[in-house]
Amino acid sequence: MASQYGENIKLTIFGQSHSAGIGMVLEGIPAGQEIDLEALQAFLDRRAPGKNAFSTARKEADEPEFLGGFVGNRTCGAPIAAVIRNTNARPSDYEALKDVPRPGHADFTARVKYGGFEDASGGGHFSGRLTAALVLAGGIVKQLLEKEGIEIISRISSIGGIADEGPLKKPTSDKAFPTVSDEAGKAMQERIAEVKAEGDSVGGVIECKVRHVPAGLGDPIFDGMENRIAKAVFGIPAVKGIEFGDGFEAAERKGSENNDAYGVEAGCVRPVTNHAGGILGGITDGKCIRFSVAVKPTPSIAKPQASVDLTTLEPVTLSVPGRHDPCVVVRAVPAVEAAAALAVYDALLNRKKEL
Amino acid sequence: MASQYGENIKLTIFGQSHSAGIGMVLEGIPAGQEIDLEALQAFLDRRAPGKNAFSTARKEADEPEFLGGFVGNRTCGAPIAAVIRNTNARPSDYEALKDVPRPGHADFTARVKYGGFEDASGGGHFSGRLTAALVLAGGIVKQLLEKEGIEIISRISSIGGIADEGPLKKPTSDKAFPTVSDEAGKAMQERIAEVKAEGDSVGGVIECKVRHVPAGLGDPIFDGMENRIAKAVFGIPAVKGIEFGDGFEAAERKGSENNDAYGVEAGCVRPVTNHAGGILGGITDGKCIRFSVAVKPTPSIAKPQASVDLTTLEPVTLSVPGRHDPCVVVRAVPAVEAAAALAVYDALLNRKKEL
Amino acid sequence: MASQYGENIKLTIFGQSHSAGIGMVLEGIPAGQEIDLEALQAFLDRRAPGKNAFSTARKEADEPEFLGGFVGNRTCGAPIAAVIRNTNARPSDYEALKDVPRPGHADFTARVKYGGFEDASGGGHFSGRLTAALVLAGGIVKQLLEKEGIEIISRISSIGGIADEGPLKKPTSDKAFPTVSDEAGKAMQERIAEVKAEGDSVGGVIECKVRHVPAGLGDPIFDGMENRIAKAVFGIPAVKGIEFGDGFEAAERKGSENNDAYGVEAGCVRPVTNHAGGILGGITDGKCIRFSVAVKPTPSIAKPQASVDLTTLEPVTLSVPGRHDPCVVVRAVPAVEAAAALAVYDALLNRKKEL
Amino acid sequence: MASQYGENIKLTIFGQSHSAGIGMVLEGIPAGQEIDLEALQAFLDRRAPGKNAFSTARKEADEPEFLGGFVGNRTCGAPIAAVIRNTNARPSDYEALKDVPRPGHADFTARVKYGGFEDASGGGHFSGRLTAALVLAGGIVKQLLEKEGIEIISRISSIGGIADEGPLKKPTSDKAFPTVSDEAGKAMQERIAEVKAEGDSVGGVIECKVRHVPAGLGDPIFDGMENRIAKAVFGIPAVKGIEFGDGFEAAERKGSENNDAYGVEAGCVRPVTNHAGGILGGITDGKCIRFSVAVKPTPSIAKPQASVDLTTLEPVTLSVPGRHDPCVVVRAVPAVEAAAALAVYDALLNRKKEL
Repeated sequence: MASQYGENIKLTIFGQSHSAGIGMVLEGIPAGQEIDLEALQAFLDRRAPGKNAFSTARKEADEPEFLGGFVGNRTCGAPIAAVIRNTNARPSDYEALKDVPRPGHADFTARVKYGGFEDASGGGHFSGRLTAALVLAGGIVKQLLEKEGIEIISRISSIGGIADEGPLKKPTSDKAFPTVSDEAGKAMQERIAEVKAEGDSVGGVIECKVRHVPAGLGDPIFDGMENRIAKAVFGIPAVKGIEFGDGFEAAERKGSENNDAYGVEAGCVRPVTNHAGGILGGITDGKCIRFSVAVKPTPSIAKPQASVDLTTLEPVTLSVPGRHDPCVVVRAVPAVEAAAALAVYDALLNRKKEL
Repeated sequence: MASQYGENIKLTIFGQSHSAGIGMVLEGIPAGQEIDLEALQAFLDRRAPGKNAFSTARKEADEPEFLGGFVGNRTCGAPIAAVIRNTNARPSDYEALKDVPRPGHADFTARVKYGGFEDASGGGHFSGRLTAALVLAGGIVKQLLEKEGIEIISRISSIGGIADEGPLKKPTSDKAFPTVSDEAGKAMQERIAEVKAEGDSVGGVIECKVRHVPAGLGDPIFDGMENRIAKAVFGIPAVKGIEFGDGFEAAERKGSENNDAYGVEAGCVRPVTNHAGGILGGITDGKCIRFSVAVKPTPSIAKPQASVDLTTLEPVTLSVPGRHDPCVVVRAVPAVEAAAALAVYDALLNRKKEL
Repeated sequence: MASQYGENIKLTIFGQSHSAGIGMVLEGIPAGQEIDLEALQAFLDRRAPGKNAFSTARKEADEPEFLGGFVGNRTCGAPIAAVIRNTNARPSDYEALKDVPRPGHADFTARVKYGGFEDASGGGHFSGRLTAALVLAGGIVKQLLEKEGIEIISRISSIGGIADEGPLKKPTSDKAFPTVSDEAGKAMQERIAEVKAEGDSVGGVIECKVRHVPAGLGDPIFDGMENRIAKAVFGIPAVKGIEFGDGFEAAERKGSENNDAYGVEAGCVRPVTNHAGGILGGITDGKCIRFSVAVKPTPSIAKPQASVDLTTLEPVTLSVPGRHDPCVVVRAVPAVEAAAALAVYDALLNRKKEL
Repeated sequence: MASQYGENIKLTIFGQSHSAGIGMVLEGIPAGQEIDLEALQAFLDRRAPGKNAFSTARKEADEPEFLGGFVGNRTCGAPIAAVIRNTNARPSDYEALKDVPRPGHADFTARVKYGGFEDASGGGHFSGRLTAALVLAGGIVKQLLEKEGIEIISRISSIGGIADEGPLKKPTSDKAFPTVSDEAGKAMQERIAEVKAEGDSVGGVIECKVRHVPAGLGDPIFDGMENRIAKAVFGIPAVKGIEFGDGFEAAERKGSENNDAYGVEAGCVRPVTNHAGGILGGITDGKCIRFSVAVKPTPSIAKPQASVDLTTLEPVTLSVPGRHDPCVVVRAVPAVEAAAALAVYDALLNRKKEL
């Protein structure tokens, strides 16, 4: 089902950009899990808009109200349900767009699919705002993984071709701009400021690692960790590619260069290198899971673009009004972590059934 | 469930490399569909081993026996079930490997997951041989798509860094080596011969297009065409990355460069360019679906590699015996088409419910 | 997943008796469906408590707030999400019960399952109050079925052994006490008043018919209409049995007595009688679907019962305080209709894929 | 999906009465489980036809060939796949029936659903023969339950209104006619012989108990043990009703009569009586699960019945030829046990995730 994810947990995402609210239902979390609601809010805040120069000016508190699933701050076994109110919607911004699809956005495809009955306002159910629900669910599950010693970290590895430097070895979440190299981060921010000034936007790549994940997670064929993570990650609107380990680079190599030899480490057999991104046959091999995600440039730009009025079929030159991120990559970082958390936690529950 | 794919169709894949047989059950295909069994066999033959210099010497006829689902050559509404016998298994080739995991293969992760009870022989359920079942299911569904005018084509776009030339505009399935440029194909084959001579292997990239697909297929968030295709494609053992449209290249661009402007074409609104790979918000936009898949080099190589004996924890230098493809990319091409076919057909059935 | 129903539609129910609210998410409803919100509220009101002598004194308006899924009163393709606030909760009524499970209720089993972390207050996620979410979802879908000419009607066929009289041929929903015979209804109400005076409760049977349902709905083996309806109906807390057509009576008969002969009716082949309840091989045969549901007596009674304090293992004599229905059957009637509506609509969408 | 069952295990059933074979794929069974193949065959033999006077004369060995999922007699983690060949098919028996639907059978509904493309021969995918696949899967899972100390027993509790006597306290599987009272069993057999002589058939009721099942299995709302068992049991062709605990009788009672008081037993809190059939709120309460299933009389009878030729719409008097059970209840007993085993085992795996 379109707005659902998971096998052992089941996440359901609902709401539209300008409906009363957006939210999620997350079923399958065992009872008795204590959730640090402050830490959860901090995780949500990493995604929340309006915080700095490179994100949309739309300000939303993104504070969830829990409708069920908790007794105090402990899960009670019932589905966790939460709503985040849409308080700062400005549907008027979108009035003019009603019949003129924004290039690169889901306006046109939603119109075709729903025959004009879609909620077009603000991107409706396709709005990036829906990732708040993903981040909320992922934030809960991320805390549960942390209790098992599993840590999810990530960074912006490039913006518009400007690459971060050095390997990702610890969280970057304490930084306003999450890169390993602050210098590289500064260059990226300048690039973003540049395109913003042009009324344009820019894309980038996010790298994510799941550390201290035990060997043996994931399942063969269609439920491997790659399939699971990819299915979750492509739930983030602007994602257009994913690669695990060396990914597309591996395709240029020889087997002898790409295979990870085995060695013994603290009495355990482990791959010595990690070209595979910690996954073989869909199953974790004890190294960290490593993947990268391609995020396209924000489609909503002020720069004039060619579109068509769907009612008259007349060409229209469109300059998208409203408050848009010149670079959605920054706010997509916690969403990628959330997607990874959901995938890994779901696989972890699956593993419990085998043991 | 690990060995299952689909929502409206449900594909179940079973068998191990050296069990009595491998096979599949495919439920959800409407009754009365005529299947051209000869064309289906021809599609299977594109994947079958032992046909040429760059594939394994293991010869398997790959002829399915249908156990149910047909009356004559028409589907009858019951699940389609088929078995392909494993006739040319040589488990003895694998005897020495029992406790020494091959680098880059699922041997080690299967051992961890199944605690020594796994069918290790020939890769068991993780063997590339299982893709015969995927290709069988995909081949059936591909024929059904063709009746709707939807065509799936693909090509090897690079091997070990050697790129094919020219855009993919028609099938390459009539060629023994499926590239657009025969010259590029020849260079790739030479590269494969080279690494084979070294006892090594090499990876590559496959490009796939789904043409004449109607706008409006796919669903929001977790069931977009990207999620659906990625979930199926990562079911092919050696795949390590996927990108849609311009994918990772899009991440380097500006919105104004990456957005596909709209125009009117034969009275229909359509994107003018196709950076998006035919998918916006998870839903097809009327352009062809276009994606590329990174295939890692075959992990089984004759070249000596470092491994460990899992029973003694002693280091072992391993030279994988047996009959292996120096480049699995060629045989993966129909598997990628099969995965795409399953994803698109499943979305097509979903679409029927909305109309 | 426990709180989910459906294959083509996906209903998710959330909330606890005394949490902020209860609600549901219903995905898979095609866009553009107009919902009569007044009629929907009227359907909800048939279940709502506090309306008459034979229901609980807890008054809840049961007015849903829609968080997503609509543009005006038309579905927009996004999941329909709604919350019904818990305004009249009196958790203090349940304080004393915290460690003393009420016989016949889920208190004890929830405690075992959730290890003391369950939301015990008011029955938590197991409360009959959750049927408001079921009735809400079913009420939406029932309207969609009505547009296809499919009508769902039902009646109380017995209370505490007192049987209704005459066949069910038209809706009884306009009556405060939904029986065919008003006289029988009066006798039942007297019985309810009697047991109420005793501090006791009483069970009953509900009969439901789905009329004008086309032949060909439902699927073989595990997705027959019987499986589908049973799975939904057992989602209503007090239901302990279901039979289709003549059900348990058919088990006493000969084939020649139980088979429905075929005849021709208005140019169509149809069974002449309806012992089968309109279902053969899991698939509708063109007669109305007919089934009966056994509802146990409300477990919460004032009469003293033997229980145990779970913390001390000491015996406790329990008289359940609070506001309880002496007979939950009346309010279960719309819930049974809702369950039937969800099952039939889901099968109807499935049918669309085949055609 | 129609031919699938389970959430943590996934059973897929395939084949038609007269196709090459029938079979099943069972995924989700942990690796390393030893299966006693002889005991499994003995369980299958309880369902196999041709063994005595009250079953069909069609003789089938019902010997499964395992295509995957095992190394020796131990599960290896890959899906268990098996085929049972259809060796004794006599499609000619069904030739005359091609266009004349047998009353009470799925012939007519399959025709409507599949538009004439169905495999009509021998009932196709709707044949009782498909229960061999169910019994095979259930037999495997039943052995796994036995290792956890969980025992499934059952008996015929009535045939054509003749009731068995005494409570079900131990297996009846060692008897050719599985009743508690041999005298009652004899009377039932005479009744069957009688109806057989008349060219007729007769129905009955089966009682099943799952003993030593731990408290805490099953999930709220739609995945309670009742929902799970009902979904599986209605997968057996002739089943028309199911009740848990006192079921329809409970509907006639008062709460004070129907509630199971709690007591302390060997230091554990347990219900003292078992009106609830061991299930409260969908979750096991520590008493045995107890349910009864109504089986309709075999629809295929020699006695003349009214039907219609579907091609001409002319009335036809039909006497069903072929080899049919005068009473399918006897052979349905292991199928009911199999269904219960699948439901309980699936819930057991679910429970593992919570702990």
